[in-house]
This record gives sequence, C-alpha cells and structure tokens, in this order.
Amino acid sequence: MEIRIMKNILDRNQNKADEVRKLLEEKKVNMINIISSPGAGKTTLLERTCEAMGGKIRIGIIEGDVTTDRDAQRLKKYNIPIVVINTEGGCHLDSHSISKVIEMFDLDNLDLLFVENVGNLICPSAFDLGESFKLAVVSTAEGDDKPAKYPRLFSEAGAVILNKTDLLPYTNFNIEAFKADLAAINPRVPLFKISATRGDGLQGWFDWLKQQLNSFRNS
Amino acid sequence: MEIRIMKNILDRNQNKADEVRKLLEEKKVNMINIISSPGAGKTTLLERTCEAMGGKIRIGIIEGDVTTDRDAQRLKKYNIPIVVINTEGGCHLDSHSISKVIEMFDLDNLDLLFVENVGNLICPSAFDLGESFKLAVVSTAEGDDKPAKYPRLFSEAGAVILNKTDLLPYTNFNIEAFKADLAAINPRVPLFKISATRGDGLQGWFDWLKQQLNSFRNS
Repeated sequence: MEIRIMKNILDRNQNKADEVRKLLEEKKVNMINIISSPGAGKTTLLERTCEAMGGKIRIGIIEGDVTTDRDAQRLKKYNIPIVVINTEGGCHLDSHSISKVIEMFDLDNLDLLFVENVGNLICPSAFDLGESFKLAVVSTAEGDDKPAKYPRLFSEAGAVILNKTDLLPYTNFNIEAFKADLAAINPRVPLFKISATRGDGLQGWFDWLKQQLNSFRNS
Repeated sequence: MEIRIMKNILDRNQNKADEVRKLLEEKKVNMINIISSPGAGKTTLLERTCEAMGGKIRIGIIEGDVTTDRDAQRLKKYNIPIVVINTEGGCHLDSHSISKVIEMFDLDNLDLLFVENVGNLICPSAFDLGESFKLAVVSTAEGDDKPAKYPRLFSEAGAVILNKTDLLPYTNFNIEAFKADLAAINPRVPLFKISATRGDGLQGWFDWLKQQLNSFRNS
C-alpha cells in the first residue's frame, strides 16, 4: 500500500519534471540541481559562481530550505532573481514546486537557473526536478566514505564538487579512497576539488560550466 | 490523501515506539537515538565512548545505514553486540525495524543501547524509535546556522554535541551565533563542545552520560 503510494508520488513527480525540462529546453535555460549534506558549501559555491560569472551569464536561483531565507539573504547582494521555497519540514524539493516558481522568472532573459536543494544527501536524489544535471557537493570534513555510503546521488550526478580542500591538512580524508569509491559508482563523472571560501580550484569549475552552457545552447 | 497516509505511517510508528520504550524501561536499558548530517562524527563519537565506558557499562549498538556496514566494521574492535540495519535507500530508521532488531540483543545484560541513525538532519527527527532521548550531533565544519535551518531535531534533542572543535580555527563558525540560535529553540538543552578525533571535551560528555544512566536506572 505504502509502496504503491510512493510509486504514484514518484510517477506524478516525473510527469511534471518532464514538462519542466521541455519548457526549459525551449527557453534555452540550463537548470542545475545542487544536492549535498547540510553545510557542505552549496551557498558559498553559488556566491563564488555569481561573482565570477554573473556579469557574463544571466543567472537565477531557486533556494530550497526547510525553513528560513538565510541562504537567499546571503545571495541577494548579487542582484539576481532569487525565489525561496520553504518546504516546512519537507526533506526535498519536487517538480511541482519547481514548476510553480519558474513562472516567477523571466525565462526569455535567463541562461542558467541554479536550484539549491534542501541539505540532505538522500531524499533529493529520488526526485527529478527537470534539471539538466544534478551537481553533488561534498565537503572534505564529511569524510571520504560518502560515495560508498550514499551511492544514489553520486551515481546520478553529472558532476561532483569536493569542497573545503583547505581543511584537508586537518582531517583524515583520504582522497585516493574517495576517488576509488566514486569511480566504482560513476566512472566518468567530472570531479572538481575546490575551496569555495579560499577560491582554490574554482577556475576549472567555471570553465567546465561555461562549456556545458555553450553545448546546451547549441543543442 | 498523501497527508492521511503520512499520518497513518506516523501513528503506526508511534504505537510501536511506545511498545519499544515500555520494554526497554522494564529491562532498564537506556536507548539513545543519535542523529546528525552525514559525516558529523557519530561513529567516531561512539568509538571514543566505547573506549572510555565500555569496560564499566554494557553497551550495544544499532547501526542504521542506507547501505554498507562500514560504520559497524569500524566499531567491531570493541567486542560489543552490534546489529546493522540497511534501509536500502530509506532516509531514516523507524520503530518497526528497531522492534525487530532489539530481539537480537540480550536485554537483561545491557545498560545502554546506542542507535546510530541514518546520516540525515531532517527525516529521522520525525520518527520516535522508543529512545530515552535524541542526541543531536553537529560539526563545526557544517556552519553555525544549523539549529535555525533545521529546527526540529534541535528542538527535540535531549543533548547536543558540537563536534570537530579542532577545526574551529580554520572555519568561520561563530560559536556565540550557534548558541543563540540553539537557545532560541531549546533553551535548557545541554551542549557539549568536543573534538572526537582529538579527545577534547569528551570527559564532560562521559560524566553527563553516566549521570543519565544512573538516574534512568533508579527511576
């Protein structure tokens, strides 16, 4: 009974996600669904990305949070369109809420729409939002065992960011073990090692992202 | 419809949790439900606690994980009873799975049963397992805004552990902001600032835990 209900929920989510994807492809808007544990650095990554690319690319942001608009407050200084979705306790965004809020953006004047999902390494992976790809963000402080312990996100991700490399000297994080676990699940996924607070490694992420936008626009 | 289903799931979970709690009270077994984000340090905290208290107190552990038995592998050196529950993608433990596995422990010869819940700051908070109290663990690397952004766990917790204080010099974590947010939600909750890897601050946690066990045993 519960399994059937869950299947219905996921089926209805998929139908709406397909609609969202179709609309965004028509409008040539690339949507990236960012998923991580709480505090892995999604918002700081968005801050750095808006600073570096906001002048050249028209960016919008959907901020998913259980409660509060604290992340949106951090981002409003970039003067880009931001819409907050508070899930009121819910553990992930779904395509129905995305479908409602994308109407609030001027899609004809947007290149890139970031969705900062709720901080959760499990549930958001199960819900397609209509994104171009999922971006998995993981912090070195979380330990090197996350791909093996939370495989679904890492297997589906179109790119992985390992953040907080500035903390590597102070943790027992084994980068070779992390890479081996990731390669076993998703052998060809691009991995960017960065420190969003210090700025290390960000250029590789920006360059790759620009390539993705170009190939999406010309597809 | 979905709301009614969710209510049914939670009601059935509560009924079974009440049964578990009654059984554990009869057997004088204190059960602690440990909840945190992925990689906040639950397993390392258990390692230190087993090392310090395992000789004096009879400890058992239920390890909840989406997949793998990696945490249990880390704990088996303490030669204490451990049972792994793999949720196979599920984002939290529930009282039905706990009810089944506590039969595998010799409850007449146990003082303390730790449940290491699935790494998730949201969903586990909604499911009573029959525990004596919930222990919230949060790492300094996650940022000081977690109590405000994920209030349910912090409002229900019987104790809070702030782990990875050794990383404080390398982060922008503001401990006064963290305490203020926590106090607004749960004014009297005990807070232990520790570094589980380095050993800092652990004695306060051990002493408090011993007090809890004594008062539970004599209640």
